[in-house]
Amino acid sequence: MIRVGIIGGAGYTAGELIRILLNHPDSEIVFVNSSSNAGNRISSVHEGLVGETDMLFTDRLPLDEIDILFFCTAHGDTRKFLEEHSLPEELKVVDLSQDYRLKADGNEFIYGLPELNRRAICQGRYVANPGCFATVIQLALLPLARNLMLNDNIYVNAITGSTGAGVKPQPTTQFSWRTDNISVYKPFTHQHLAEIKQSLQQLQSSFSKELFFIPYRGDFARGIFCSCVIRNGVSADELYRLYRSYYEEDSFVHVVDEPIDLKQVVNTNKCLIHLDKYQDHLLVTSCIDNLIKGASGTAIHNMNLLFNLKETTGLKLKPSAF
Amino acid sequence: MIRVGIIGGAGYTAGELIRILLNHPDSEIVFVNSSSNAGNRISSVHEGLVGETDMLFTDRLPLDEIDILFFCTAHGDTRKFLEEHSLPEELKVVDLSQDYRLKADGNEFIYGLPELNRRAICQGRYVANPGCFATVIQLALLPLARNLMLNDNIYVNAITGSTGAGVKPQPTTQFSWRTDNISVYKPFTHQHLAEIKQSLQQLQSSFSKELFFIPYRGDFARGIFCSCVIRNGVSADELYRLYRSYYEEDSFVHVVDEPIDLKQVVNTNKCLIHLDKYQDHLLVTSCIDNLIKGASGTAIHNMNLLFNLKETTGLKLKPSAF
Amino acid sequence: MIRVGIIGGAGYTAGELIRILLNHPDSEIVFVNSSSNAGNRISSVHEGLVGETDMLFTDRLPLDEIDILFFCTAHGDTRKFLEEHSLPEELKVVDLSQDYRLKADGNEFIYGLPELNRRAICQGRYVANPGCFATVIQLALLPLARNLMLNDNIYVNAITGSTGAGVKPQPTTQFSWRTDNISVYKPFTHQHLAEIKQSLQQLQSSFSKELFFIPYRGDFARGIFCSCVIRNGVSADELYRLYRSYYEEDSFVHVVDEPIDLKQVVNTNKCLIHLDKYQDHLLVTSCIDNLIKGASGTAIHNMNLLFNLKETTGLKLKPSAF
Amino acid sequence: MIRVGIIGGAGYTAGELIRILLNHPDSEIVFVNSSSNAGNRISSVHEGLVGETDMLFTDRLPLDEIDILFFCTAHGDTRKFLEEHSLPEELKVVDLSQDYRLKADGNEFIYGLPELNRRAICQGRYVANPGCFATVIQLALLPLARNLMLNDNIYVNAITGSTGAGVKPQPTTQFSWRTDNISVYKPFTHQHLAEIKQSLQQLQSSFSKELFFIPYRGDFARGIFCSCVIRNGVSADELYRLYRSYYEEDSFVHVVDEPIDLKQVVNTNKCLIHLDKYQDHLLVTSCIDNLIKGASGTAIHNMNLLFNLKETTGLKLKPSAF
Repeated sequence: MIRVGIIGGAGYTAGELIRILLNHPDSEIVFVNSSSNAGNRISSVHEGLVGETDMLFTDRLPLDEIDILFFCTAHGDTRKFLEEHSLPEELKVVDLSQDYRLKADGNEFIYGLPELNRRAICQGRYVANPGCFATVIQLALLPLARNLMLNDNIYVNAITGSTGAGVKPQPTTQFSWRTDNISVYKPFTHQHLAEIKQSLQQLQSSFSKELFFIPYRGDFARGIFCSCVIRNGVSADELYRLYRSYYEEDSFVHVVDEPIDLKQVVNTNKCLIHLDKYQDHLLVTSCIDNLIKGASGTAIHNMNLLFNLKETTGLKLKPSAF
Repeated sequence: MIRVGIIGGAGYTAGELIRILLNHPDSEIVFVNSSSNAGNRISSVHEGLVGETDMLFTDRLPLDEIDILFFCTAHGDTRKFLEEHSLPEELKVVDLSQDYRLKADGNEFIYGLPELNRRAICQGRYVANPGCFATVIQLALLPLARNLMLNDNIYVNAITGSTGAGVKPQPTTQFSWRTDNISVYKPFTHQHLAEIKQSLQQLQSSFSKELFFIPYRGDFARGIFCSCVIRNGVSADELYRLYRSYYEEDSFVHVVDEPIDLKQVVNTNKCLIHLDKYQDHLLVTSCIDNLIKGASGTAIHNMNLLFNLKETTGLKLKPSAF
Repeated sequence: MIRVGIIGGAGYTAGELIRILLNHPDSEIVFVNSSSNAGNRISSVHEGLVGETDMLFTDRLPLDEIDILFFCTAHGDTRKFLEEHSLPEELKVVDLSQDYRLKADGNEFIYGLPELNRRAICQGRYVANPGCFATVIQLALLPLARNLMLNDNIYVNAITGSTGAGVKPQPTTQFSWRTDNISVYKPFTHQHLAEIKQSLQQLQSSFSKELFFIPYRGDFARGIFCSCVIRNGVSADELYRLYRSYYEEDSFVHVVDEPIDLKQVVNTNKCLIHLDKYQDHLLVTSCIDNLIKGASGTAIHNMNLLFNLKETTGLKLKPSAF
Repeated sequence: MIRVGIIGGAGYTAGELIRILLNHPDSEIVFVNSSSNAGNRISSVHEGLVGETDMLFTDRLPLDEIDILFFCTAHGDTRKFLEEHSLPEELKVVDLSQDYRLKADGNEFIYGLPELNRRAICQGRYVANPGCFATVIQLALLPLARNLMLNDNIYVNAITGSTGAGVKPQPTTQFSWRTDNISVYKPFTHQHLAEIKQSLQQLQSSFSKELFFIPYRGDFARGIFCSCVIRNGVSADELYRLYRSYYEEDSFVHVVDEPIDLKQVVNTNKCLIHLDKYQDHLLVTSCIDNLIKGASGTAIHNMNLLFNLKETTGLKLKPSAF
């Protein structure tokens, strides 16, 4: 049994991690650290856990009792923690914050997108889990990068559920405002662009064009639906072949002929991808559950790889479908 | 032109009051007081007002420049204000808080449910606007009270939109929590029960049974849908006759043969009522828009009555329907 | 491996059955019969199954290749089928229609509410799966019946998601109509009342009062939230004790101290129950996922019991939570 | 009083036309033709009209009793009607179908986008009302066309509410499918592209680039939110100046400094526009209510112009806001 610790246990991604791990056959949760909730039942904070666990949040950090530590911390707090603590030598880490996603001198973290870096993750110890938008956009574009086909500007639109905004109340997370509403935020400048470009250039070092990314706030709780438009002269059939070849060995990415819709992936670790050609332009649509494939599901996927489990272990989730 | 002032201008009911008053042909808004927002554009706080008004919130209170003052204040604050200020003699007042709804020594306010107290309001000066749940429940039951038919316990269920919870963030007003969710709050003990019983006893002084009221949080923004079940031996036809007779002169209450649904009244000042009989039990369903008929629409209705305008003035609102 | 066949495979409950069974460790789906969809991919009809299965719908019925047959048929069609076909002797059956829920001469079906009839189901062969409203209402009331406490009228309100209305388009299942809308249907006369009363009388044969049930259409896709109000003189503490005692050995029903909300159970096989006392009246709130605990989850629960598996097998589902 | 007739009275746009016209001070509805609903109450089909009108649908067509005829017919049916009937000479027409939007020999209809063709409409008789997507996209781009700034491909994404799909049930208009769901349809090939290009070329005849338009189905009932990305070297300040100058005399289009959101325009005839610059690229976001500014509101706007009324007559609608 892999013994698991979680830091930052009160947030949405921690809740989702717990929900999945409770049914994971080869791991057990040892502690869920949350200073603000220490002593409270986990089920009193995280919807859906009544009857699943009687565990309490703790403010303790028994790092020598665990094999892997998940950071569900706010951006900046993982780095701060690691600067202030030294970790047991064998302890593995998956960081869901953005602190170590970008390559830099002294950064020992592997960028944890299994569809890009599976081999490295399997042999690694520290993993930086990708961002949610970053995941759905990369999965839409990686096969093009692998085939050196990113030679023009890319126009990306992606709409996210409210859980992407985190648990902290904001005017735009109020129900009365958000329901039935659509809006744009951080156009062109979303913080995930850097990790996306880093990955695209990992496969196509010549990539030097712009990625014009417009993120939208959606009026639903879960999921991201993404569209990418780019000039491409290759036929749809050939592109489908390239995409399917790229994802051949991946368990969670499915390239499908029919148009896709967001609820096909909600509450699963799947990513669906669909292609449309029009003249010399390609539309790639892709969708994921932002909290699962876009966060906690991939974190567990990474854990499975770090411990040489079958990658789908614990991640065969019933789709909510409706 | 009736000159209007508003206190507590940043809340939902104030926003709705402004949205309606801007198209009211016989009134003009002189000031909207909000200490926290003084100097800001009203349209920057209240959705939907871009292009309708360039007014700013003010922290001034030029009471001698207005004919009527609307209190959109938190419960307790109207009373506090009136204890600390003396109002110009001719100034009329509509208070949307609950401070003066209950009869008490020295309380000069008329309970402002037009379908109960129209004549008194027409001749009055200070009006206590009813609560939203109180409105939809009273309108369902008043004809029974008038006919002395409230002789058994009444079982009331009513579900309200998120705007009923006000603008201040709470865990239950977060989109991620509230969307697709249903829950109960304050069962049996909601604060509106007192004003409801007061009104029922105004028409049927013998009423001494219980009103078991279960309020629900709904996963929509606007409206209240209410059901009341009570023992009643009279035929449906006769009850329809009594209800229609009661509301004969009321512009906004409609007793309809077909089953009703909430969106028939959303964004209007209407209340729909439908009756079902089963054996010796009666089901009364009723619905309103909680912010209009349940708050700001009735406030303007009361203003119309206070100034002897046609009661529908400014209140013929296009239903949103969808 | 339990070999499974499904009839009526294109409906919502069949889809849900398939989604759950695909991850059930001790069963395999042999065929999914749907005359209208024969030859089509199951994943082209049922949301969320891309990448989970490549199975096709069939119009064949190889009854001798299966151990259990699930009827996901329209009401009336199971009876018709059984009148026209003779089943292999060893074949077990779970019928999700309402055809055999009521006791009658010659009806060999056991009413399949595990929390009422577990022992009989374990030894049975034919099971009539309860209705969704019937499940959530019975679970709220069975402990009172067991303790002979149903001695007055019961006032029940329950609001259901749109999937409760089935896959066939109706005016009230159109998005433009249903979103943000609330309405009542079949007040006092819902067809589930008969099976509810039958179960209550099974435990409290003296029960002879009325159950006034008002069903609501909710503006969400999944779940039922139910409230029951009844006169009861016992203390809350004592009632909690009785409820917990009743459900002591049940895996899926949880009696909780805190107020409950619908999303705590969505996408799970759980039922949550909460009690409130006010004077001599009791409010029982309960909630389930209508498609799982209210249909396909209980069907699989019944299969587990029929084949002497652990009752939670395949039913530890990650809550969708948001 | 302008006397109004409506053909195709059972659809969403007819309902919206009626809801607005009932409060229009200078017009009266003479008949609402619907063969399928003849004899039924209008309020039994169109949500929100109980208490507003007792009119019935008719299958009569007394064309000589009206001054203007609105076609709310399916695409193709207006043309068919006009080929089979001859209209009274003085009768004016607003056609909400797409039959006459494109210039062609013998097409006497003026393309009815007031912000483009106000003068012609004022002097006209037959008006082809624009499509909903076409309206929100044109309003986003017309100022650029006027200033000859459309010299590169335009990347357009726009998400529409379910009412855009009309009243006829489809799999994608089912609540259980659509709620919380996002999907793309008709990428690159939406039928509104032709009228959009026609208008852009009316102002900038040199426009020859592509308009890559990805339409989305949104999980809300009302509204369209649109984003257009295009290369543009001019500063944001200068672009704001050009946009404000273009719309200076238009009552319903507002160019705003702050980011916009869909609910600012729902249930109004307004269009909001916001600009963002990033390097040499411009993002234009715009939003409208698809049934009002995108259909029936503009139809009435056109009526006001045809009859030389103030253009805002009857179109000062309270925003629903929530």
